[in-house]
Amino acid sequence: MVPAIRVPASAASRARSLLRTVQYTHPPSCPCHSNPNHHHHHRSPTLADHVRRHMATPRDASREKEYAFEMAASSIRFGPGATKEVGMDFANMKAKRVCVVTDSNVAKLTPMKQAIEGLTREGIEFTVFDKVRVEPKDSSIKEAIAFAKPYNPDAFLAVGGGSVIDTAKLMNLYTVFPEADFLDFVNAPLGKGLPVTKPLRPLVAVPTTAGTGSETTGTAIFDLVSKGAKTGIAHRNLKPTLGICDPLNTRTMPSAVHASSGLDVLCHSLESWTAIPYNERTPRPTNPINRPAYQGANPISDIFSLQALRDTVKYLPRAVKDPEDSEAQSQMLLAATLAGVGFGNAGVHLCHGMSYPISSQNPGYKHAGYDVDHPIIPHGVSVAVTAPAVFRFTAASNPDRHLAAAEAFGVDISNVKRESAGEVLGEALARFLSDLGDQPLGLKNLGFKAEDIDGLVEGTLPQRRVLMLAPNLNSEVEAERDELRSLLEQSMEY
Amino acid sequence: MVPAIRVPASAASRARSLLRTVQYTHPPSCPCHSNPNHHHHHRSPTLADHVRRHMATPRDASREKEYAFEMAASSIRFGPGATKEVGMDFANMKAKRVCVVTDSNVAKLTPMKQAIEGLTREGIEFTVFDKVRVEPKDSSIKEAIAFAKPYNPDAFLAVGGGSVIDTAKLMNLYTVFPEADFLDFVNAPLGKGLPVTKPLRPLVAVPTTAGTGSETTGTAIFDLVSKGAKTGIAHRNLKPTLGICDPLNTRTMPSAVHASSGLDVLCHSLESWTAIPYNERTPRPTNPINRPAYQGANPISDIFSLQALRDTVKYLPRAVKDPEDSEAQSQMLLAATLAGVGFGNAGVHLCHGMSYPISSQNPGYKHAGYDVDHPIIPHGVSVAVTAPAVFRFTAASNPDRHLAAAEAFGVDISNVKRESAGEVLGEALARFLSDLGDQPLGLKNLGFKAEDIDGLVEGTLPQRRVLMLAPNLNSEVEAERDELRSLLEQSMEY
Repeated sequence: MVPAIRVPASAASRARSLLRTVQYTHPPSCPCHSNPNHHHHHRSPTLADHVRRHMATPRDASREKEYAFEMAASSIRFGPGATKEVGMDFANMKAKRVCVVTDSNVAKLTPMKQAIEGLTREGIEFTVFDKVRVEPKDSSIKEAIAFAKPYNPDAFLAVGGGSVIDTAKLMNLYTVFPEADFLDFVNAPLGKGLPVTKPLRPLVAVPTTAGTGSETTGTAIFDLVSKGAKTGIAHRNLKPTLGICDPLNTRTMPSAVHASSGLDVLCHSLESWTAIPYNERTPRPTNPINRPAYQGANPISDIFSLQALRDTVKYLPRAVKDPEDSEAQSQMLLAATLAGVGFGNAGVHLCHGMSYPISSQNPGYKHAGYDVDHPIIPHGVSVAVTAPAVFRFTAASNPDRHLAAAEAFGVDISNVKRESAGEVLGEALARFLSDLGDQPLGLKNLGFKAEDIDGLVEGTLPQRRVLMLAPNLNSEVEAERDELRSLLEQSMEY
Repeated sequence: MVPAIRVPASAASRARSLLRTVQYTHPPSCPCHSNPNHHHHHRSPTLADHVRRHMATPRDASREKEYAFEMAASSIRFGPGATKEVGMDFANMKAKRVCVVTDSNVAKLTPMKQAIEGLTREGIEFTVFDKVRVEPKDSSIKEAIAFAKPYNPDAFLAVGGGSVIDTAKLMNLYTVFPEADFLDFVNAPLGKGLPVTKPLRPLVAVPTTAGTGSETTGTAIFDLVSKGAKTGIAHRNLKPTLGICDPLNTRTMPSAVHASSGLDVLCHSLESWTAIPYNERTPRPTNPINRPAYQGANPISDIFSLQALRDTVKYLPRAVKDPEDSEAQSQMLLAATLAGVGFGNAGVHLCHGMSYPISSQNPGYKHAGYDVDHPIIPHGVSVAVTAPAVFRFTAASNPDRHLAAAEAFGVDISNVKRESAGEVLGEALARFLSDLGDQPLGLKNLGFKAEDIDGLVEGTLPQRRVLMLAPNLNSEVEAERDELRSLLEQSMEY
């Protein structure tokens, strides 16, 4: 039985009003508020005021701010054992030839066994591609595409972690656009960043880790080796038709994988919650097909991001410490998916932007608990290592949001000044990472030295798609370079 | 500028932990907890415990409880002025023949003008059906279908309120299934309740009211005159491809329409928040295509429902009182959509179940502010009029959820006992309705007399699809009849 609960309503509703306030007011940086011709507001400017003004005075579209947001997510089915239903799903959609995508490790595990049994039971023809590379490169993606094209499946099934699901998205994309050049759809400026103009074939994703949220997003990330950068392809049409989140499938994750994939969830939720608001993004697209999925924080992504943050703070430590805690594991799978919907419709920023060079310029660190024969900084670790410095830095853009995040970590913010929001959140994050155990507390612990920082800065600068969502970052390139350098320096140890 | 906000963290986190608790524990009515062979739990039984047990002992599927939930929603674009983008959306999807659906009133308004301009600008062929009946009947739906079939459009555009969007969904359905009998897809037991086995054509919905949330759901409601009952067709495949929520489109709603459509949002959020949990629903479907969209409360619908409830309490009174309050109107449109995602994936129960006979057995009431030449009890009014009695009754099923709802109304629940949850929420609702103004405070004010109650009970009993989600309702038919009668009696006046 649930015990009687008594909540001082006034305090709780103040907490809610805090969240409400941060959603619909504009940071002082909004340039139209400093326009001297603009009449004085008697109340805080609202979304409606803001848009009305922008709409009343048409200007150069490339300099106009966004006025709308769009929310799209895969259908999600959540339940322990739901993997067994997947054969029926393909039968229901009348699929005749399914390309099953996995990696050589997951290929041996129960979820793949159940998927194959399901397809077989329904008499559906399928073939298995089990050569997905964990942390895919363009070469491994191209190999997968070369497998899919001649098979020409009418549907795809991905069973695995983010690498598997991302690879399946791109197999689907280039099977539907067989004549396209690989760079056509890759994010600009590295690729051409063309929009995806046709619907893709059905893709069902069965995640076996609780981290990337890839089962709900239209994003696929890989190393573009020729350009020496981690980048990706992102468009709403890439998102899976259905994500089947089966908590039984994450039970075999080693504790170290729980931890690092959970840190990815933590940063997805924190970065999307603190990203610039969608209506501060420029340019306003002239065609809705060009409205990016990484569009900035908005009232719907906010709900998902904050819930995922709270769940992660609560359940990740339990999931890491006790492999038998199936409730915590189940909640972390749900949190990963919620965060996926959040960042998939808002975006991430500095932690993710810097994580790509941190992972690829690894000086030789091998994370404990990862049974591989080469150095590895897991994605979640490379993302979280800069988080304390990042949120200290971004807090000035919206102290209330950062206070709300600190509160999600259990900090008593009742006597915290807004000016201290960054300090308090940075401290809470550092403590969370330290308490989680086995986390490198700073870049120094990953083997980076002061002289490596310039390389990390140069590796971060091309990540425009995420840097454009970073609050408080200077838009002048030399100043931006200095700010990134400072963030990396502050991330050396804590 | 946002003022400094100081929140006693412990109180606020207790509020949150209340919400957390109510999500993942089971009401004492869960029969497997009263099984004497079941070993004692040292902690509250969790979702994981629950499912593990059910899965370990396979039984007759028709008596097994559900173990999974599925969340599906239309893509949503939200922004003032976004209606102008709709022509480009159809061009982007390469539509060649669009059937535009509206009613004779909306046909004259700006959103239709903008939609037509958009299609024309893109050179897309279209035709307009403007004969949608507000509160559709099967006859009006069939007339609309007869219009759509020979035109055989490759896409649909609905511009209007819930009646327009619902009618467009069914025009789409029966154009894709031209040989189907009308009753094939109608909810059982009135129709055959067959699942929709093929994807439908793209449907873009542009709501002009902030109420039904139909732009996000797979549900279409109408009067089945031959059977004397309000019913509908509900399947995920019916949901629009995209809902374009443009706050400029609801500005012309009269204050009375704001009020009654907002009361629909209020009940969508409250009923879905308090519906039986998805894992208490029977039977567990043997094929996922038979998992109903009205599946019971679940962790994702909860997020939407509670947020929509809070927003409605905050913004509906403002939207009703001040036609110039564009912020409140905008927030109510967002709340309607959020509530749509919530109840569209969880369901509604008693208020909606009783509203159908209340509207159709109208003794002659004509709601103030509705400029029509016949008696009318607007849908939102017929739903809200029983709400105080309903939530007094359902509170025993989950007092904590009802306390959380009362808190959303601003009630200080810090000294409220769990046994009083229903009383407190019922009172808060009655006060909210009274403060809103121009609301009939009870069935008596609608002209119903004591001798009408039996007719209302008999009109409610066939609404199985929603009654099956009612918490606390007796499953034995005579007892259920008594409970419904008592709810209606208590709703006579307050």
